[in-house]
Amino acid sequence: MDEQPWSRRRLRSNNEWLLLERLRRAGPASRAQLARDSGLSKPTVSSALAALETAGLVREAGTHTPGRGRVAVLYEPDPAAGYVLGVDIGRVRLRTAVADLSGTVIARTDQRNRGRSATSVADAAIEAAGRSVAAAGLHPAQVVHAAVGTPGVFDPHTGRVRYAVNLPGWGRPGLVARMRERLDVTLSVHNDANLAALGEYAFGAGAGSRLFVYVLIGTGLGMGVVAGGELFGGAHGAAGEIGFLPLDGPPASGAAPRRGILESAVSADAVVTAARALGMAGPLTARRVFAAARAGRAPAAAAVRQEGERLALVVASVTAVLDPDLVVLGGGIGRNADLLLAPVSETVHRLTPFRPRVAPSEVGEDAVLLGAVTTALRVARPQVFERRTGRA
Amino acid sequence: MDEQPWSRRRLRSNNEWLLLERLRRAGPASRAQLARDSGLSKPTVSSALAALETAGLVREAGTHTPGRGRVAVLYEPDPAAGYVLGVDIGRVRLRTAVADLSGTVIARTDQRNRGRSATSVADAAIEAAGRSVAAAGLHPAQVVHAAVGTPGVFDPHTGRVRYAVNLPGWGRPGLVARMRERLDVTLSVHNDANLAALGEYAFGAGAGSRLFVYVLIGTGLGMGVVAGGELFGGAHGAAGEIGFLPLDGPPASGAAPRRGILESAVSADAVVTAARALGMAGPLTARRVFAAARAGRAPAAAAVRQEGERLALVVASVTAVLDPDLVVLGGGIGRNADLLLAPVSETVHRLTPFRPRVAPSEVGEDAVLLGAVTTALRVARPQVFERRTGRA
Repeated sequence: MDEQPWSRRRLRSNNEWLLLERLRRAGPASRAQLARDSGLSKPTVSSALAALETAGLVREAGTHTPGRGRVAVLYEPDPAAGYVLGVDIGRVRLRTAVADLSGTVIARTDQRNRGRSATSVADAAIEAAGRSVAAAGLHPAQVVHAAVGTPGVFDPHTGRVRYAVNLPGWGRPGLVARMRERLDVTLSVHNDANLAALGEYAFGAGAGSRLFVYVLIGTGLGMGVVAGGELFGGAHGAAGEIGFLPLDGPPASGAAPRRGILESAVSADAVVTAARALGMAGPLTARRVFAAARAGRAPAAAAVRQEGERLALVVASVTAVLDPDLVVLGGGIGRNADLLLAPVSETVHRLTPFRPRVAPSEVGEDAVLLGAVTTALRVARPQVFERRTGRA
Repeated sequence: MDEQPWSRRRLRSNNEWLLLERLRRAGPASRAQLARDSGLSKPTVSSALAALETAGLVREAGTHTPGRGRVAVLYEPDPAAGYVLGVDIGRVRLRTAVADLSGTVIARTDQRNRGRSATSVADAAIEAAGRSVAAAGLHPAQVVHAAVGTPGVFDPHTGRVRYAVNLPGWGRPGLVARMRERLDVTLSVHNDANLAALGEYAFGAGAGSRLFVYVLIGTGLGMGVVAGGELFGGAHGAAGEIGFLPLDGPPASGAAPRRGILESAVSADAVVTAARALGMAGPLTARRVFAAARAGRAPAAAAVRQEGERLALVVASVTAVLDPDLVVLGGGIGRNADLLLAPVSETVHRLTPFRPRVAPSEVGEDAVLLGAVTTALRVARPQVFERRTGRA
């Protein structure tokens, strides 16, 4: 956009953007409604809507007949003005989704992550994304932005993902560039727990929270924080790396752990280890331990209770630092909130007088993917606007 | 202010405010410089400056003669346009300061807190504030806003301070109203560690930090967070109540502690308890323990090392959640950073790969008071502007 602060063109462009966002947030509206809401004159609204319609950003959405008035045409943002791609690269599963500019998912894939090397994981993600785009009936060039969620912290200076210990080799240089080139789209990489927090905030239990914390407990342990509707990233994008909370006191000696002490204590394999120590036999997964607890088996119930007590330490720690009004438990372990909430709440009550609401995830396994779509939309919407109004 | 978004009056008022803030942040400037910086026309700048001067908000500040140009008059904000009061009510000391609108402290008091009851503490603060105002040569009505720092969390709904266990009786209703009435000024109450963080950010080591954490270690334990220049308060103003970090694992049973587990482990009396357990005899204070450690006495040095290791748990915990780029140690214990920084850093290195810079406070004991002044200025400046430009 040009730089003169009060130029007519800048004002006109701002008005168009404001009207478009109003339609996006509050739904279809007529010229008269938009003029009333925005304080702009009806001629200004009419010419802005005409410009937005010509640019393919707004379309007619039926009519509305007020009490005694004339028939009014309703307008809405044209969802086909652009498309985004969301990708969730997890240790266990690989998911992609294509959404239009309204946020409606129109195609998706969901498969096991069978990659044996980091390169084969990246290639599987590229291939699945291509299938999603084709299934949506789109040409790849119609995808405006792709957002990818992975464990770890992406460092934009080196182009590498750090601290992703649960995806072996994922810290290798060149993987992000490879995805960007093969998909031929601008692509951003984000921490999976951060995206899950945004997904749960935009589509699930987080709506309206002032300070929202999402704890992702699965193969690993992560956390995303949404403060006032915006992701809270910290100074270097590493906020919420709570696997490194030192909840067992200071270590006697030695180098820093590659994997967080707490992550080792509460992630899925910790549940299995605890259950085995408490007397469960046979081939175990965290899922089986929770199923056995639900069936009333004592060692499994004890392992689950212990997991809840440890998660309470996470909730109490995060509460002491951040003062959230809502903590959502998500991920493969968090999914068992029916069993975990009681021991979590009881233990939090013994630890601190500060007690945020603790709730299960509403969007479940889709949280990271929906957060990736949300993030891609935030990047794509202003880009599409600028391209289509000729200001790119 | 009126509500029409593009009214001429609103625009004119915005321009005046922008120019005033520009002069506040970047120092005295001429009409030509202001026109260049703001993108506003010279006639617009001239009439805005004339209005600001008439309102007593701006004054001439000498002249400037550019290379070949004419002599240009420089303008600056008039610091006498209004005054603020800052109050620091600590367990041990009671401090007040009066500052002009530029932030220059023009009078202050500093005394022991001898109050035996919460009411007598409040009355001592009222009396000291009155002395500061008188020493500044002001009439009380010239004070636009007062900001008060205390331990605990102020609840605006009940008008009471909660969790201030180190100031007995301070949770009583009516104390804040009493101060407000006696001083006859709008008065806000803030957590002491939050104010100290703001004070250290505005006047000390925190300058320029993207995510700044100030840990206040003295009679109690508190923390303030400044994110992007703004205080991070959490959902209910209780962010940073790190005395309740559960760093000793889950409790066996029982009710929630009135005092945080961690606060009991790292505040001043914990240092004394540790030193006694390690063999120091005689009447002890934390100050004496640090002095003995500095003099090379082994039990004292061991107690100080243990304190450093515990503080490292705080730094590692806060880092896992927030990802700060700077952690400052302040308060009576934090003042001994010369002895504490080495054990803190060594232990943090063993706990986590995430290592923010840890540094001593630069503003020292004045942090809370300077933060109170900073906070009062943020409230007072727009109020003075609106009053003096007739928009109140």
